[in-house]
Amino acid sequence: MDDFSAYTQSTQQVSLKSGTTAVLIVDMLHDFCDPAGAMCLPGAERLYPIQNDLIQSARASGMMIGWIVDAHRPGLRRDREFLKRAQHCLEGTSGINVMPQLDKQNDDFVFIKRRYSAFFGTDLDLTLKDNLIDTLIVFGVVTNICVRSTVHDAFFNGYQVVVPSDACAATGPREQESSLYDIATHFGVVAESQDVLDHLAGKGPLKIWEPKE
Amino acid sequence: MDDFSAYTQSTQQVSLKSGTTAVLIVDMLHDFCDPAGAMCLPGAERLYPIQNDLIQSARASGMMIGWIVDAHRPGLRRDREFLKRAQHCLEGTSGINVMPQLDKQNDDFVFIKRRYSAFFGTDLDLTLKDNLIDTLIVFGVVTNICVRSTVHDAFFNGYQVVVPSDACAATGPREQESSLYDIATHFGVVAESQDVLDHLAGKGPLKIWEPKE
Amino acid sequence: MDDFSAYTQSTQQVSLKSGTTAVLIVDMLHDFCDPAGAMCLPGAERLYPIQNDLIQSARASGMMIGWIVDAHRPGLRRDREFLKRAQHCLEGTSGINVMPQLDKQNDDFVFIKRRYSAFFGTDLDLTLKDNLIDTLIVFGVVTNICVRSTVHDAFFNGYQVVVPSDACAATGPREQESSLYDIATHFGVVAESQDVLDHLAGKGPLKIWEPKE
Amino acid sequence: MDDFSAYTQSTQQVSLKSGTTAVLIVDMLHDFCDPAGAMCLPGAERLYPIQNDLIQSARASGMMIGWIVDAHRPGLRRDREFLKRAQHCLEGTSGINVMPQLDKQNDDFVFIKRRYSAFFGTDLDLTLKDNLIDTLIVFGVVTNICVRSTVHDAFFNGYQVVVPSDACAATGPREQESSLYDIATHFGVVAESQDVLDHLAGKGPLKIWEPKE
Repeated sequence: MDDFSAYTQSTQQVSLKSGTTAVLIVDMLHDFCDPAGAMCLPGAERLYPIQNDLIQSARASGMMIGWIVDAHRPGLRRDREFLKRAQHCLEGTSGINVMPQLDKQNDDFVFIKRRYSAFFGTDLDLTLKDNLIDTLIVFGVVTNICVRSTVHDAFFNGYQVVVPSDACAATGPREQESSLYDIATHFGVVAESQDVLDHLAGKGPLKIWEPKE
Repeated sequence: MDDFSAYTQSTQQVSLKSGTTAVLIVDMLHDFCDPAGAMCLPGAERLYPIQNDLIQSARASGMMIGWIVDAHRPGLRRDREFLKRAQHCLEGTSGINVMPQLDKQNDDFVFIKRRYSAFFGTDLDLTLKDNLIDTLIVFGVVTNICVRSTVHDAFFNGYQVVVPSDACAATGPREQESSLYDIATHFGVVAESQDVLDHLAGKGPLKIWEPKE
Repeated sequence: MDDFSAYTQSTQQVSLKSGTTAVLIVDMLHDFCDPAGAMCLPGAERLYPIQNDLIQSARASGMMIGWIVDAHRPGLRRDREFLKRAQHCLEGTSGINVMPQLDKQNDDFVFIKRRYSAFFGTDLDLTLKDNLIDTLIVFGVVTNICVRSTVHDAFFNGYQVVVPSDACAATGPREQESSLYDIATHFGVVAESQDVLDHLAGKGPLKIWEPKE
Repeated sequence: MDDFSAYTQSTQQVSLKSGTTAVLIVDMLHDFCDPAGAMCLPGAERLYPIQNDLIQSARASGMMIGWIVDAHRPGLRRDREFLKRAQHCLEGTSGINVMPQLDKQNDDFVFIKRRYSAFFGTDLDLTLKDNLIDTLIVFGVVTNICVRSTVHDAFFNGYQVVVPSDACAATGPREQESSLYDIATHFGVVAESQDVLDHLAGKGPLKIWEPKE
């Protein structure tokens, strides 16, 4: 079918201000990223230096840093997610630990989620609003499920969203391209990590990725 | 990257019972489907006979029928969706009319939505629960945005979801395949419309689509 | 038991700015206010002049006006509210009409609700945010159920709330006093209508009601 | 004004089944119950034996037990609740500990909340639904704020609610009576703790409190 991007507003500009922007790092956890994890995405290790650059640049500018942690309560009679997916990220196991290669600090925020979206059944929205945040930089794994679900709800709840494409990994190349295309045309802004870093370093407006079918 | 579908539970069975299943037809509206509409998806007309077969079969079995209608309030200071997309589906215009080719009846339910998801900021969840529904058959346009966003929230809210693949259209072939893959592996069940019809006609268990990368 | 109001912050100041304040008039409907209605609160007519003064003053200053309309879908298998309360305010009946004595204009906003709170299962929050509103003036019937439930959710969602006490009526004098006390100490600010009008007319800071046990 | 209870359905019956009922104990925390706490309600100690009887009887019958814990993130730029109330229940302090006099077990569920309602911005609803719960026994402090706000949202989300009146304490006698009246007429069922215990012990239908103005 035809190209919907023709109808996309081309004028959207996003300016990342330290006092009103938060970085959300989604599900960079042992069970998803470590070869010994319950549901490992091979190759997650290539994301660590890219993500650390973003985190450190954002932290240096005074931005709020939030870690999104998928964690399931053990012993539920019927965890709906486990009807679809193998068991993973149980509370009380090391599966929910953030990968130690990443620069997580004690003062960072942590948000526990039970579903793919970091907004569903969590205090993320109210905490962001109490912290006067209106713009989010979202990345992590996997682009097409938890990152994307979080981006959906961020948009619905009124946040501007920036997704650094190479700081995310999907379950496959088609899913990476397709979810980034959908995000760029309908939910937020996609950019290269280096372009986000350049913008944070004061080198001009954020260079935005052109969605391609 | 690797294949996550290996981690998908293969045991999920869905049985469509008339008393607890609802059909949701998403955004089959003038502005999205008619060549004169504000944001027409070419080729939407091929969906009408397929959708009508599903609607009539479901209605004959006594299932709840719900029409999801994207409708934006005119005159808002800043409609967030119009920051990303060209203006469309304004209340008070014919753009929000359901296409007349479709079998909409007076007793059907109508749900007005303001965002891509039919659950966000609507009475859909409470109405389904007051109507004792736990399973949804969801189709319409576009697969990768409004259908998919609705499927996300249906899953998060605890519903079983069935998506008849050929009763949905995406903004492009990659997006159609990618969203159906994500739905089938993480959010619900994808099936051919004919297989849904056969199951509704009592010809055995629902034949489920195998997700392929 | 003891007085919790000792723990209330005394410093809260509310300034009602036209561009960011909305007036919400709750459930001033035929079924609740007219002697022929399904569930009439005797004496509702004394509220009309007080409410009209507030509405007209707010409208003159350019504030958003929103009418909250309780309306139940007919034919649900189990409307949860009707398990507790006699049937009322059915869609398609005159029971959901706003009382004609009130100054409702065509450009005002209308929000349909299904539960006591105007936020639950509605587009109220997203519409207020798209309209850049952060402060609400809430009044109507009944203070202790629908007004109060709406005030709860307004506070939880981050709005400043002002309740003009004499523009609200409860199901009894104890309930009026008790809900206003709870609102004043925990959810927002209570004031006399005349004091709200004086503040809107530029006669100085809003004079706030002192909660009394 | 007049008596709304005339319109209350008198037929509501609640049967407390172990597999589908959960007990929620609200905010029985150091900062609210201990004389050394930040915001102590004098007399909370009289609730402990009553609550323990309910908890132990429910646990013996196999019911889910959930502890609701008000806990605020330190360091937020603007915690909305602290605009209205003195600072209390900060994460990382002993203020959020459940009172040791109460029979809390390791396998019980704990739900952290940030606002008065245990449903707002938490995983309570999804966890209850994953645990197949449709009925709640809710008690704790204070009746007129956190217990009541939780009861509102429980009703809105479709749960049957039973509130054992003498297992709750309000900020004052008028507020205790008024909130119990509102709950009994609009949101759920109020009963004496002994009558709940008798019902759990199989001594017949739950004896329900008659709301009085």
